[in-house]
Amino acid sequence: MDSKTAQVLYDFTAEPGNNELSVREGETITITNQNVGGGWIEAKNSRGEVGLVPEDYIEIKQAQPFTSGGNAASLDLSLFDSHIPAPPSTAQTSNGNDPWAVFDSNASGGFSNNWAAQPEGTETGETSSSAWHSGGHGHPQAYQGPGAEDDEWDEEWDDVKSSGGYAESEAGEGGAIHRGGAHGSSMKIALNKFPGFSKSGPELYLLSKQPAKGTRLPVYGGEAGPVWAYPDYQLDCVVADPKKGTKMYGLKSYIEYQVTPTTTNKPVNHRYKHFDWLYERLLDKYGSAIPIPCLPDKQVTGRFEEEFIKMRMERLQGWMSRMCRHPVVSSSEVFQLFLSYKDEKDWKMGKRKAEKDETVGVMIFSTIEPEGLPDLDLIEVEQKCEQFNRFTRAMDDGVKDLLTVGNEHWKRCTGPLPKEYQRIGKAFQNLSSVFNSSGYEGEATLTDALTAAGKTYEDIAQMVAEQPKKDLHFLMETNNEYKGLLGCFPDTIGVHKAAIEKVKEADKLVATGKITTSEKITMSKRASTMSYALQAEMIHFHTNRIYDYNRVMQQYLEQQVKFYEMIAEKLRHAHSQFTTM
Amino acid sequence: MDSKTAQVLYDFTAEPGNNELSVREGETITITNQNVGGGWIEAKNSRGEVGLVPEDYIEIKQAQPFTSGGNAASLDLSLFDSHIPAPPSTAQTSNGNDPWAVFDSNASGGFSNNWAAQPEGTETGETSSSAWHSGGHGHPQAYQGPGAEDDEWDEEWDDVKSSGGYAESEAGEGGAIHRGGAHGSSMKIALNKFPGFSKSGPELYLLSKQPAKGTRLPVYGGEAGPVWAYPDYQLDCVVADPKKGTKMYGLKSYIEYQVTPTTTNKPVNHRYKHFDWLYERLLDKYGSAIPIPCLPDKQVTGRFEEEFIKMRMERLQGWMSRMCRHPVVSSSEVFQLFLSYKDEKDWKMGKRKAEKDETVGVMIFSTIEPEGLPDLDLIEVEQKCEQFNRFTRAMDDGVKDLLTVGNEHWKRCTGPLPKEYQRIGKAFQNLSSVFNSSGYEGEATLTDALTAAGKTYEDIAQMVAEQPKKDLHFLMETNNEYKGLLGCFPDTIGVHKAAIEKVKEADKLVATGKITTSEKITMSKRASTMSYALQAEMIHFHTNRIYDYNRVMQQYLEQQVKFYEMIAEKLRHAHSQFTTM
Repeated sequence: MDSKTAQVLYDFTAEPGNNELSVREGETITITNQNVGGGWIEAKNSRGEVGLVPEDYIEIKQAQPFTSGGNAASLDLSLFDSHIPAPPSTAQTSNGNDPWAVFDSNASGGFSNNWAAQPEGTETGETSSSAWHSGGHGHPQAYQGPGAEDDEWDEEWDDVKSSGGYAESEAGEGGAIHRGGAHGSSMKIALNKFPGFSKSGPELYLLSKQPAKGTRLPVYGGEAGPVWAYPDYQLDCVVADPKKGTKMYGLKSYIEYQVTPTTTNKPVNHRYKHFDWLYERLLDKYGSAIPIPCLPDKQVTGRFEEEFIKMRMERLQGWMSRMCRHPVVSSSEVFQLFLSYKDEKDWKMGKRKAEKDETVGVMIFSTIEPEGLPDLDLIEVEQKCEQFNRFTRAMDDGVKDLLTVGNEHWKRCTGPLPKEYQRIGKAFQNLSSVFNSSGYEGEATLTDALTAAGKTYEDIAQMVAEQPKKDLHFLMETNNEYKGLLGCFPDTIGVHKAAIEKVKEADKLVATGKITTSEKITMSKRASTMSYALQAEMIHFHTNRIYDYNRVMQQYLEQQVKFYEMIAEKLRHAHSQFTTM
Repeated sequence: MDSKTAQVLYDFTAEPGNNELSVREGETITITNQNVGGGWIEAKNSRGEVGLVPEDYIEIKQAQPFTSGGNAASLDLSLFDSHIPAPPSTAQTSNGNDPWAVFDSNASGGFSNNWAAQPEGTETGETSSSAWHSGGHGHPQAYQGPGAEDDEWDEEWDDVKSSGGYAESEAGEGGAIHRGGAHGSSMKIALNKFPGFSKSGPELYLLSKQPAKGTRLPVYGGEAGPVWAYPDYQLDCVVADPKKGTKMYGLKSYIEYQVTPTTTNKPVNHRYKHFDWLYERLLDKYGSAIPIPCLPDKQVTGRFEEEFIKMRMERLQGWMSRMCRHPVVSSSEVFQLFLSYKDEKDWKMGKRKAEKDETVGVMIFSTIEPEGLPDLDLIEVEQKCEQFNRFTRAMDDGVKDLLTVGNEHWKRCTGPLPKEYQRIGKAFQNLSSVFNSSGYEGEATLTDALTAAGKTYEDIAQMVAEQPKKDLHFLMETNNEYKGLLGCFPDTIGVHKAAIEKVKEADKLVATGKITTSEKITMSKRASTMSYALQAEMIHFHTNRIYDYNRVMQQYLEQQVKFYEMIAEKLRHAHSQFTTM
C-alpha cells in the first residue's frame, strides 16, 4: 500500500500549522499513509515534503480497481462536475495590508453554505506572501443533515465550510445576487430540508394542524412597537485563550477557543467547527424569523497563524456577543447548551437533541405568541414587510458604501500617505545633513531642529500607517457585521413575502375547495403572528443598531481626536526646536 | 491698408486683461490697425473678435511685396527657425491647483534669458481652464544690449522675456543641463558681452592694467570668515498696490507696482519690465561674484488676472527683499536708483548711466578690496572654491528633492485626499439619512450626530485642500527662491574655476613670454581677492540660509500644528454629539 501514487485533481493549499501539504492539479504524489481517516490521506510530493491532503482532491492509482477505502473519492467526484474549483485567474487579488479586501466577498453567502456538496473556490495562488487573502480555502464536504452526523468530531477538521458561490463576487454584485435570490431561492435555502416542502412553502406553518412544539416565544406591545421578551440579565460571553490541540496522533492540529459566559463564568472549550455547528442549528431553527449572520469568514487567513487565529477569535467574539444580545437566540436551549454544557456527556446529549429539533424553518412561527396584541390585517402586514425591506436594502447600500470608502481610506493610510510623510521627513533630514556639510560654524541649532522635524514626519508616517488599526478597524468591523446581518434580511423577508402571497390566494383556495374558510382565517391570523415576529425583530435590530453605531462612532472619533492631537503635539515639539533670531 | 489680411504662423494665447487676441497657427485674420507699434498689430478674427497680436506671429498678405512696415517680420522669422514655438503636445501638462508645477521649469534658466533672440515656448493650449500653467508664454523679442536700448519704454510690453530652453525640462533634467553648462557655457553667459572676451576669460581682470572704476567693495575678516561690509541699517522694501495703466490710447495695458523702500518710505512705481531691467543690470555688474537669482518666472499665469498679478507681486517682493538684504547689491547705485529715484528725469539719467557702467562681468573683482587679509595661496583658493561647489550642488539636490516631495504632497492634499474625506463625510451623512428613514422613533440624537460627523469630515476635506496655501506654499516659495539662487552658483563658481586654471598656467605663460613675472604675481594676488569675494558671498549665503530656513520651518510647523489642532477640535465637537447609553 505504501508505494501507491495518486494524481492530484484540484489545487489544494495547505493551511499553516495544520500539517497539510499544498498540491497542484496534475501533480503526482506518493501515498505514505492511506489510513489517516477523516477524509485525509498522508502523502509525499516530488520534493520529499510530507503532509495531509484531502482524499477527495486526489485520484489514487492502483492495479486492482474498486478495493475498499479511499478510492471511493474518484467516484464521488463525478457529482461535483459543476463545482470544479475556480481557476486562479478568477480568484480575488489579495491586498498586502488590507484585511477589508475580504469584506467584498464574505457577507452574501449567508444561507448558501449548507446545502451543497462540492469542492469550492480553493485557494490556488501562493498564500505565504499576502497578509490577508480572500480566495476560498475550502475542502470538499458533503452536508450530512442533522440525523446523519455522528459524534465523531475528531474525524473532521476545523475549517471546512465552503463559502458558496459568492466568494468571488464583488460587494455590489454579491448584494445583487443575494437580492435576486431573495424571493425565489430563499425558500429552498431555509426550508427545503423538510420533506414535501417544495409543494408547501410557508404554508407548512400557515396551514399547520400540529400543536406548537418547543419553548413559546412571546411578543409584547412595547413603546416603539412589538418587542421580544427581554431577559432581566443581558447575557454576554468572552471568547479567548485559543489553544492548539492535536488529533490523529499529532498528525492534525486544531484550535480550541475558551468561551466563558458572563452568567456562569465557567469556561467551556469550542473549536471553530462547533461554532459552525451552532450557527447551523440557529439558522435552521430561527433563520425564517431572525437574521442569523453567518460566521466570520472562514477564508480569512493571516500571513502568520497567530494573525489568523487572532482575527478569527475577534470575529467569533463579535458574533457570539451579537447572539448573546438576542433575547430569543440567547435563551434558546441550543445556545445555552453551547455556552454552558457541564461535561462531554451533557454536550453530546444536547447536541443530539438539538439536531432532532423539529421546530425549525417556518415552524418557528408556531411558537410565537403575540401577547395582548390585536390581529393585523394583511394590508398592514404587507406594509410593514415592505417598509422593513426598503430600510434594510437602503442600509445595506449605505453600509457597503461606507465599507468601500473605508477600504479606500485604509489603503491610502497604510500605503501612499505614510510613504509621502516619510519622504517629507527624509527630505528635511537630507537638507539638514547638507547644511551640516556647509563648513559654516554655528548652525547646529538649525540642523538639529531640521533633523528633529524630519524625524517627526517619519514618526507621523508611522502613526498614519498604524492609525487605521486603532479606529477605522472597529468602524469597519461593525459595518462588516451589519453587512452580514443585512445580508440575511432578504431571505427572512422573503419568507414573509411568500406567506403574504399565500394568504392573498386564500379566497381562491377556499373557492377551489383546497382549504376551508376556517383554515383561511387561521392563515390570516398566522400571517399576523409572523408580522409581529418580524416587527419585534426589527425593533431589536433598530435598538442594537442605534447602540452599535453610537458606540463605534464615539470610539472612532475619540481615536481620531487622539491621533490628530498627538500629531499636533509632536509638531509643536518639533517647532520649539527652531530658534527665533 | 485696413482690409489687409494675414496668415497666423504660430499659435498665440492672449494674456488676460491685455487687450490681446488669441490666434491659432493657420488662421486667417484681418488687420484692423497696422500702426499700433511696439511689435503689435491690431487684428480681427473670423468670429469678429478684435485684439492685439504680435506682428512676428503673422504673415501679412499684400499685393506689393517689400513695402515698409510690419512685413519685415516674415523675413526675420527665418532667423528663428530653430526656435519655433513648441507644439502643444510638448507643453507641460498643467495641474489645476498646483502652482508648483512651474518650479520644475523656472529655476535653471537663470543666465540664459538674455542672449537669445527667439520666440520661445509659446503657450499653445487653452489657458482658461487651468489655474497655473507652466508652458512658456513668450513674445519674440530680440535682446538689444545695453547701448542699443533707448528710453521709449512705452513701446514695449510687460511680459516679454522668453524663458529659455529650459521651459520644458524637468527639475532633475534642468539641473543636469545647468551643471553640464557650468564649466563651459558660464563664460559666454556672464562675460561674452565684452569685446575680445572669447580670447581672454577671467584674465580680463587677472591681467587688467586699468585702475579700478566704481565704488570699492571691501571684504573684512569676520568671525566665521571673510565678510562683506554690512550697512548699519538693513534695507528692505514693500512691493504692493498693483495698478493697471494703459498706453497706446488704451490699446495696451500694463501693471505698475508700488515699491516703497523702508529708508525713504517714499513709494516709486515700476512695471515688471523695470524689474527686469534692474535684474539685467545687477547680473551684468555682479553676476561673476554674486549669485543674482533670476526674476520670478514670467510664464506663471493665473486663471484670473488677479491671481497672476498677486503671485507675481509676491515673488517680486521676495526677490526685492533678497536683493535688499545683500550688502553689495543694496548699496549699489543702480539699486538705489531703482528704489528711490526722485523724478522721471532722475530715473532716465540714472538709467543711462547704469547702462554705460563698464565695471561689469569679471571687472567687478577689481573693485573688491580685502582689508587686512593675507593673500591666499592657490591651493587654498582652489580648496575653498571646491568646497563651495560641493556644498551648493548638494544643497541644490536637497532643495530640488524637497520641492519634488512638496509638489507631490501638494497634489495629494489638493486632490485625492480631500476627495476621500469628502466621501467619508458623505458616507456618514448617507447612513444618517438611511437611519432617518427607519421609522423607528427616538434615534434623532444618533442621526443628528452622524450628520454632524459627516459634515465635519467634509469640513476637514476643505481644510486639507486649503492647508497647502497656508503652510506648504511658503516652504515651497522659500525653496524655490533657493533653487533659483543655487542655480546661479555654477556660473559664479565657473568664473572662479576658470581664474584658478589661468593662474595655474601662469608659469607656462611666463616661460613662453606671454606675461611677465610681475604679472604672474598680480594674477595670483587677484585670484586671492576673488576667493575673498567668494568666501564673503558664501558667508552671506550661509547666514541668510540659516535665517530663512529657521523662519520658514517655524512658520510651516506653526501652521501645521494649528491645522492638526483645528481638526482635533472639530472632531472633538463631532464626538461630543454622540450619546453614551
